[in-house]
Amino acid sequence: MPESPITPRAQDFAAWYQDVVIEGDMAEPAEIVKGCMVIKANGYAVWERIQREFDDRFKATGHQNLYFPLLIPQSFLQKEAEHVEGFSPELAVVTVAGGKQLEEPYVIRPTSETIIGHFFSKWIQSWRDLPVLVNQWANIIRWELRTRMFLRTTEFLWQEGHTAHANHEEAVEEVLRILDIYAEVAEDIMAMPVIKGVKTQAEKFAGALRSYSIEAMMQNGLALQAGTSHDLGQNFGKAFNVQFQSKEGQLDYVWQTSWGVSTRLIGGVIMSHSDDKGLVLPPKLAPTKAVLVPIYRKDDERGRVLEAAHRIAKDVGAKVDDREGQSPGAKFFHWERLGVPVVLELGPRDLASNNIVLKRRDTGVKEPLPQAELATRLPAALAQMQTGLYSRALARMKSNTVLASSIGEVESILRDVTAEKGGGQFVMAHLKDDPACDARMKEFKATIRNIPLVDHFDGPGKCIVTGEPVDRRVVIAKAY
Amino acid sequence: MPESPITPRAQDFAAWYQDVVIEGDMAEPAEIVKGCMVIKANGYAVWERIQREFDDRFKATGHQNLYFPLLIPQSFLQKEAEHVEGFSPELAVVTVAGGKQLEEPYVIRPTSETIIGHFFSKWIQSWRDLPVLVNQWANIIRWELRTRMFLRTTEFLWQEGHTAHANHEEAVEEVLRILDIYAEVAEDIMAMPVIKGVKTQAEKFAGALRSYSIEAMMQNGLALQAGTSHDLGQNFGKAFNVQFQSKEGQLDYVWQTSWGVSTRLIGGVIMSHSDDKGLVLPPKLAPTKAVLVPIYRKDDERGRVLEAAHRIAKDVGAKVDDREGQSPGAKFFHWERLGVPVVLELGPRDLASNNIVLKRRDTGVKEPLPQAELATRLPAALAQMQTGLYSRALARMKSNTVLASSIGEVESILRDVTAEKGGGQFVMAHLKDDPACDARMKEFKATIRNIPLVDHFDGPGKCIVTGEPVDRRVVIAKAY
Repeated sequence: MPESPITPRAQDFAAWYQDVVIEGDMAEPAEIVKGCMVIKANGYAVWERIQREFDDRFKATGHQNLYFPLLIPQSFLQKEAEHVEGFSPELAVVTVAGGKQLEEPYVIRPTSETIIGHFFSKWIQSWRDLPVLVNQWANIIRWELRTRMFLRTTEFLWQEGHTAHANHEEAVEEVLRILDIYAEVAEDIMAMPVIKGVKTQAEKFAGALRSYSIEAMMQNGLALQAGTSHDLGQNFGKAFNVQFQSKEGQLDYVWQTSWGVSTRLIGGVIMSHSDDKGLVLPPKLAPTKAVLVPIYRKDDERGRVLEAAHRIAKDVGAKVDDREGQSPGAKFFHWERLGVPVVLELGPRDLASNNIVLKRRDTGVKEPLPQAELATRLPAALAQMQTGLYSRALARMKSNTVLASSIGEVESILRDVTAEKGGGQFVMAHLKDDPACDARMKEFKATIRNIPLVDHFDGPGKCIVTGEPVDRRVVIAKAY
Repeated sequence: MPESPITPRAQDFAAWYQDVVIEGDMAEPAEIVKGCMVIKANGYAVWERIQREFDDRFKATGHQNLYFPLLIPQSFLQKEAEHVEGFSPELAVVTVAGGKQLEEPYVIRPTSETIIGHFFSKWIQSWRDLPVLVNQWANIIRWELRTRMFLRTTEFLWQEGHTAHANHEEAVEEVLRILDIYAEVAEDIMAMPVIKGVKTQAEKFAGALRSYSIEAMMQNGLALQAGTSHDLGQNFGKAFNVQFQSKEGQLDYVWQTSWGVSTRLIGGVIMSHSDDKGLVLPPKLAPTKAVLVPIYRKDDERGRVLEAAHRIAKDVGAKVDDREGQSPGAKFFHWERLGVPVVLELGPRDLASNNIVLKRRDTGVKEPLPQAELATRLPAALAQMQTGLYSRALARMKSNTVLASSIGEVESILRDVTAEKGGGQFVMAHLKDDPACDARMKEFKATIRNIPLVDHFDGPGKCIVTGEPVDRRVVIAKAY
């Protein structure tokens, strides 16, 4: 057996992740463009699946897709004070175009609240124009210092939803509706359990009143912010003068929301389920759900096996790997590393016994079964794998979630955790939503991930930093 | 009847086009970003339909979607001499990022041959790695002086295919395979007849051996280059050192192709079929194929009409416009301007007689028919409209195609043609593929659109500029 091209998780989790990404044909670093990657065929196919799942749900809840310019006049960023402060260090700036120095530079969108605010002010005059519910699938540039494929790259692909409402209540409903969609796709399709919650004031989006997030736990125990939904209040409405006449005839600023998920989700899926053999994709997300590898040694077996392989595969919607010049063993490794949920094997002996062998990617278990049962057993295996991956990830998250009742305790749990060595936990502690508390966590490189919307622990308590009473425990972790 | 917001074609074709685009919720100018537009909901929905049609065909012919970085090191553009000369004047350049002046600026991709050439050189070593067949859906920036929504904008959306082959023959096969796909979608889905041909050397893509195009005729008789497919030869292979070991063990440069269609196609569809009432979309392309407008005057009619409307609409897959506070007349104008192929009307009298009224967008003819027949008559009407739009566009192209046998004749036919006034024709004349002949056409602002792959005229003749013998007539026209 050839040596695995994949570093074991236990040895170096970060190296393992990079190996899985590359061997899984998901992405490769584009070292010639700082912090960028090429999204390869398997990675882009997964992104197309993710897009489909979200896009269908956005449309079903009344959102329409639009497309706004990539370039934003630099002055637009400056109209919302917190926004410019948050994004300025990360901007890529176009200063020359068409052979000339530009009078006003453009920034490449780091997010589109500002330019969309500009258009909302043109489109919205009356309560009759509300709500406005738009979404955009686009590329984004944020000049990041430390990058990691999918998880944090200078350029990434995402969707950004932007909505305007007549009052705060409707805006908050929208924010939570989207957070639910994010959690549903993360859990049901990606088999990645998440904690829905509100970010602290120190961690909110630059320009928002309140940011909500879904937080997932990777196999090394680090947290991944997998999606955010922002209650922007009237901040951008005021910055871009988006006013409307209310039903009562009064002029008011709109209440806005924005929300996004990105190619970062792909990194989350990879780090949730993959193993030392390579990528593992949940069946509902996998672009290819099953591949049949025909096995034959002699030329006279070839025709019979291939004929049966294509017939059986067609019946169950599997792909046949009939490439010549590749051994069955090489094919097994190939599909294993690409994360295909089920590989079927069919050889001359199977033909003789009317059997076929089904191998699940997650358990590695090979099971011979009658060909006649495949049409029911394959979907059942895929459904079991989907449930199994979710349960396993949920159990891991639960067993790596601990309570702490002092700052020293939090620090000692998280002190030695790194992305490479792992050992991360979600530490649940009572902490006030106060920048001083966030700053205290930063001292040992942890963050308050969010304040869960639902309390699954012991209710109110005293903040372990300030001693003040707080509603419930927050999630503290080291994070990507 | 309110005054139409749409300028009649006969009065000013360019103003008509802009009005149709805006009133059809297709796009609006983004005046704050030079030469850009916002693609609005109806326009983006059409783009999603176009993407689906092409993407399915690309995948069925073995292509995979990947995603490459938006930013390209400036030095990459300079590696292919013709390429840099062609694109330099149109580049947008990022000189500052992350708060610092960059040592080497990046250009925003005007097309991706160079950065993809870089990766091909990493991925391709042997004939076993070939062919490589990739496609990318992406945004592009080219700093254009004169812009027009969809037809020519600073930023546009497109797909760009990039392939590498072991020999020239296979590359040419690919170029023509894609040209056929482009023509098929243009004609079968967009109902827009096209002429497939090869561009002259003067008009080819910067860096190609040969460029092929599909050319369509707009209602004002101007030509629109609707898609291009390039035989790149070994030019980029040599510039980026993409070498492979052949079956015979020799080192050779790959033969590459690239090909693209863009949001420009949407402009082509609009200018092919729309009328003075607004947008007309071919049924196969229309995001919404039929809308049912319920008609009722009194409250006691409302419930019965709406119940029947939803029941009937559900059966035939139509959308019900049950908005309150909008008159049926306002709804008819609304859907007319959005280009919905069929509008159904249902009122109390129709209910009593078990009829429904079907109105086709292209002909404007209203036809009452038994509700029981709608399930067969609606698809039939859509199919007839699809065929009708194509036939009408084809007849228009034929009747506006003329032969010319002298340069004076070509000039007199095209002299007074403008995008505003129209009167354009396709002038078929014998012309040599020689930059001197292209230059002669430029004197009266016309261009050789392409040399058709199939000669539908009188075979060989003498070039009307040089007098030399040439194979067949070329297409000369004023163009977007």
